[in-house]
Amino acid sequence: MERFGTVAIAGVGLIGGSIGLALRRKGLADRVIGLGRDASRLDEAKGLGAIDCGTTDPARAVAEAEVIVVCTPTDRIATDIKSLAAVAPEHVLITDAGSAKRRIVEAVEGDIRAREVFVGAHPLAGSERRGAVAARADLLDGRVCALTPTGRTPADRIEAARRFWTGLGCRIVVLDPDDHDAALARTSHLPHVVAAALASSVPEHCLELAAGAYRDGTRVVASDADLWVAIFRENAVHLLESVAEFEAALGRFRDAIASDDPETLRSLWVTARERRRSFEDGPPA
Amino acid sequence: MERFGTVAIAGVGLIGGSIGLALRRKGLADRVIGLGRDASRLDEAKGLGAIDCGTTDPARAVAEAEVIVVCTPTDRIATDIKSLAAVAPEHVLITDAGSAKRRIVEAVEGDIRAREVFVGAHPLAGSERRGAVAARADLLDGRVCALTPTGRTPADRIEAARRFWTGLGCRIVVLDPDDHDAALARTSHLPHVVAAALASSVPEHCLELAAGAYRDGTRVVASDADLWVAIFRENAVHLLESVAEFEAALGRFRDAIASDDPETLRSLWVTARERRRSFEDGPPA
Repeated sequence: MERFGTVAIAGVGLIGGSIGLALRRKGLADRVIGLGRDASRLDEAKGLGAIDCGTTDPARAVAEAEVIVVCTPTDRIATDIKSLAAVAPEHVLITDAGSAKRRIVEAVEGDIRAREVFVGAHPLAGSERRGAVAARADLLDGRVCALTPTGRTPADRIEAARRFWTGLGCRIVVLDPDDHDAALARTSHLPHVVAAALASSVPEHCLELAAGAYRDGTRVVASDADLWVAIFRENAVHLLESVAEFEAALGRFRDAIASDDPETLRSLWVTARERRRSFEDGPPA
Repeated sequence: MERFGTVAIAGVGLIGGSIGLALRRKGLADRVIGLGRDASRLDEAKGLGAIDCGTTDPARAVAEAEVIVVCTPTDRIATDIKSLAAVAPEHVLITDAGSAKRRIVEAVEGDIRAREVFVGAHPLAGSERRGAVAARADLLDGRVCALTPTGRTPADRIEAARRFWTGLGCRIVVLDPDDHDAALARTSHLPHVVAAALASSVPEHCLELAAGAYRDGTRVVASDADLWVAIFRENAVHLLESVAEFEAALGRFRDAIASDDPETLRSLWVTARERRRSFEDGPPA
C-alpha cells in the first residue's frame, strides 16, 4: 500500500478534514499537519481526528511535507500554492481540491518554483454542509478525482498525484484544465445556479405546498455563499455558456407546454430521463 | 378512531397502493377494493397487501363503497369520478389524488350527480417510482393533503373527506382549486420541468464528471413521462407563469455572473438559501 511521510493540509474544512480523516484512518501518512488561519478551528479538526497537529504558520506546516493539499476557497488557492511552494521541501508534491482549474493552473504556471511541484486536482465530492465537523473519512471513496496537469507538469509529480488521490479512494480522470472547467460548469456549477434560481422563484406563501421535487431541486442551495460566489466568478465564461444551453432546453419545454404539444413534451421528458439514466448507470465498464 | 366501511380505490399504483396499505395496516376500513383495467396489476396489489380484493368492473367495485378514492392519471380523473358516481351508493364520498385540480373540479361540477358527493384532494406525496410495487403504508404520514371544495360542495362531504385524509395521516389544507393549481405549478410542476431541462442540457460526455448537484437536481426526471405530460397540460397556464418567474430569477444570476458582481451574486444566493430554509423549517407552529 502507498504510504506518504508528512502530509500538510491547508484549509481543514469539509474537504480538507475528510482528506485528513481518510489519511489517518487508512494509515496513508506518517503525520498529518493542518494549516489554517484560525487556531480554534485547527483545535477542532484535531479533536475530530482529522489532523495530528495544527499550526497557523505556513513555513512550519510544510517544512517536512512530502505532500501538500490545498483545500482553501477557490479564489485563494493559487496564492496559497505559490506561497507554500516557496517554503516547502524541493521534492514536495502540491495538489489542490479547487472546483475550477484553468485560472489556478495558469497562475501557478507563471511561478517558476510552484509549477515544478504542482498538479491540479478536483475530487468530485462535497456536501452542502461545511467545516471539519461535517468531514467524513469515506467522503472521497469511489469518487472521481480530476487531475489537470499540463505539458509543463513534471511526469513524476503527475505520478505522485495519481498515487495520492488513488490512495484516498478516488478514481482518476486526467484532463485539460479548461476542458475540466467546461465540463464542471455543466455538471456542477450550472446545477447550483439553477437550484438557487428555483429556490428563490417559489414564493414564500406557497412553501407549505412544496414537497420532494422542491426539496431535492434546491438541496445544494444550503451551501456556503462565499464558496459558490467564488466558483461562479472563477468559471464565469463556461458557466454563462452552460446557462444559455440550459435556457434553450427550458425554452423547448416552455414552447411545447404553450402549444399544448404532448408528443414533443413526452419526447423531451424521455430524452431527459435517458440522460439521467446514463448518469446513474455510470461509464461503460 | 375513524373507521370506514368499504373503501374502493380506482387506480392501484404508487398512490392508490399506498392508500390501500395504510387503510389496511391502520385498520381504517372494513374492506379495501381495488378497481383497475388490468387484472394482473390488481393481483399484484392484492399480493402486496394493498387491497383485500380487486375487480375490473366499476359497478361491482363501488356497489357498497362508503368512500371512493380516484387515483388514476390526472387526465382520466374527472371522467372516472363521473362514471363511478353514477353507479355508487347515494351517500358515498368520492375524493381523488390529482396533482392539478381546477379542470377536474369544473368538470365534476358540471355533473349533477357527481358534484353532490365529490371533494377534490391532493395528497402531497409521491416518488419517482411507480406502481403498487413502490407503494408504502407510510407514504402519506405527516404529509399535507390539499382539499379543494367549492361553494357548492356539501358540508358533510367536506367533513367526510377531512376525516378520511386525516385518518391516513395527512395534515389538511383547504384552498380554492385554482389557488391550489397556482401554488402547485410553482412548488412541484415547475421543479419537474426545471429538473428535466437540467438533465437534458448536460451533454452525455460530461456525465462522468457529474456528482451530487446533478443527481439531486434531476432526481424527479426518473418519473413516468405520461403522468407528467398530463399534469403539465392540465396546469399549463399557471405552469407557464411559473416558468417565466423562474426565467427571471435565473436571469438575475446570469446577469450578475456576466457583470462579475460578487455582492449581487452573494445577495441572490443568500435570498435563495433563506427561502429554502423557510421550506425546511415549515410553517410557524
